[in-house]
Amino acid sequence: MATIKDIANKLGISVSTVSKGLNGANDISEQLRQTVLDTAVEMGYVPKQMRTKQCRKLCIFIENMNYETPDQFGYDIILGFKQAAYPANFEVTVMPVTPAFQMLEKYDTFMMKNGYVGAFLVGFALQDSWMDQLETTSIPTTLFDNYIRKNPNVSYIGTDSFEGIDAAIEHLASLGHKKIALLNGSANSMITEQRRQAYIDIMNTHALPIREEWMPYSYYVAAAAKDHVAGLLAHGVTAIVCGNDLLASGVLEECRALGYRVPEDISVIGFDDIPISAKLTPPLTTIRQERIELGKCGFYTLNSAINHVSVSRNLLRPQLIIRNSTACVRK
Amino acid sequence: MATIKDIANKLGISVSTVSKGLNGANDISEQLRQTVLDTAVEMGYVPKQMRTKQCRKLCIFIENMNYETPDQFGYDIILGFKQAAYPANFEVTVMPVTPAFQMLEKYDTFMMKNGYVGAFLVGFALQDSWMDQLETTSIPTTLFDNYIRKNPNVSYIGTDSFEGIDAAIEHLASLGHKKIALLNGSANSMITEQRRQAYIDIMNTHALPIREEWMPYSYYVAAAAKDHVAGLLAHGVTAIVCGNDLLASGVLEECRALGYRVPEDISVIGFDDIPISAKLTPPLTTIRQERIELGKCGFYTLNSAINHVSVSRNLLRPQLIIRNSTACVRK
Repeated sequence: MATIKDIANKLGISVSTVSKGLNGANDISEQLRQTVLDTAVEMGYVPKQMRTKQCRKLCIFIENMNYETPDQFGYDIILGFKQAAYPANFEVTVMPVTPAFQMLEKYDTFMMKNGYVGAFLVGFALQDSWMDQLETTSIPTTLFDNYIRKNPNVSYIGTDSFEGIDAAIEHLASLGHKKIALLNGSANSMITEQRRQAYIDIMNTHALPIREEWMPYSYYVAAAAKDHVAGLLAHGVTAIVCGNDLLASGVLEECRALGYRVPEDISVIGFDDIPISAKLTPPLTTIRQERIELGKCGFYTLNSAINHVSVSRNLLRPQLIIRNSTACVRK
Repeated sequence: MATIKDIANKLGISVSTVSKGLNGANDISEQLRQTVLDTAVEMGYVPKQMRTKQCRKLCIFIENMNYETPDQFGYDIILGFKQAAYPANFEVTVMPVTPAFQMLEKYDTFMMKNGYVGAFLVGFALQDSWMDQLETTSIPTTLFDNYIRKNPNVSYIGTDSFEGIDAAIEHLASLGHKKIALLNGSANSMITEQRRQAYIDIMNTHALPIREEWMPYSYYVAAAAKDHVAGLLAHGVTAIVCGNDLLASGVLEECRALGYRVPEDISVIGFDDIPISAKLTPPLTTIRQERIELGKCGFYTLNSAINHVSVSRNLLRPQLIIRNSTACVRK
């Protein structure tokens, strides 16, 4: 492992200047500090507080997901993470990030500069620049709903997509539905692809027809439903499985606007079981993700990585919550 | 949930007789006790000690795997499980089982009769009769290397097969090997199928040839190598990835007997990294499974199920350990 002296030699500066750069002293320039940090990361230097485990600071980075209030998907994930982390004496900082921020700051450098010993990344998109950097990071990192191949420092936790889609389609098939659509979320997401593949496999298992027009990509927001519902209905589907509950709420609204009754004319299933789903008209049948438990699972998996136990994937089982938005197919 | 009275009514016997049957009193016949237990399980009765979590008895059932001494694969798995379970105040019983025993005793009945609140099942084969029963069990159960769909009480833990085979084939491909065999284990095992699928996918990813003759099933013992090595060599393979280290040790021996040098003429990779692999001639390149950690992971996952958090799968990352049984392909 590289030492402070190695960094000093490489940069042609003194050991004490390197030390100032690593520790964020205010008598060296921000530019020199950045150079010291970048070089330290490049050379594989690990700060003493990270080596000795005395530092117990973790960061949750969150993107593309609302989490400020209890009715939002991310809220309980963060709560669960903190509930598990505090008894183990970790400090937790929550930090929203953007693609632009990721372009500006390298992941390892940012972690080292702020003294974080590990991070939980929630809601990241496949094309985010930190996602590439995670392939080689030496910092313990756990991802919600994203997977990095090979790097033993990085783990994936989430809900088993296959089981969720399986439960939804089995329920619809038992109600006589054959023409079942998957109104999926954003194409830039790993779980969108997982669910699409699960949908294809399970429709095949049930010997149900598969048509490209029945599995459009959209976005994980209510407004995205408007662009797709009329088309799906025109293509003859009798049931729509949605990428999340927000999208499903948009589908309910759009069906109403087009004069279709749910569930008499068309069945609708959501994903997540966020608090609004029970209060929609009609109350939404949905695939529940246990968010508090996902957050806890995120901490435990991250803590494993900090202790050099490398989890590849840790997936919870979803649960189908049957309410009133699904019914027997109309004859 | 069924009560003791419900069981008494169904069987037409007194509540106190049911109670004696459930508690194993010695003044009722063994046959009547069995009837009471079977009926209790059938009716979904949950004993008080299971409901109140006062009972902290767990059982590890083990089959098709040696575990008595530290050089055997199962030893550290059981050790790791106990290391995690004892601090949480659980008692752990280790019990070897056979297919015949499973035919004789129903899983739920056996668990209830012995007051176990959860079990860790290691080394079970796909056709074992308890495997069918796990689809509907109400008892928290964690399986090593086996997966039960849908039942929220049952979890799967193990090592990520895909990552293991991926690392092995990538290593061999980087050494110039193209004709790579997978000498697989028993066809009655879920992970055998997983590894076969991983092998096919990864050979395809590397644009390497795939031939049915290069991926025979055998058994997870050294002696099984004898039936396959000459055939694989005759089919022109230059490297053999083996289902476990025992099988790989048999391959080394068989290569020697047939006049082939390892690694000069043929490269060999094992799976597991049991203690003997470093001592073989030559020391074996192998895919390491972290067995102590797998055992701990087994306990944590089972404890989650006991606390009504349902894990679908929890997989650790394997690590490729490069020793001397692999080398550049012979020109």
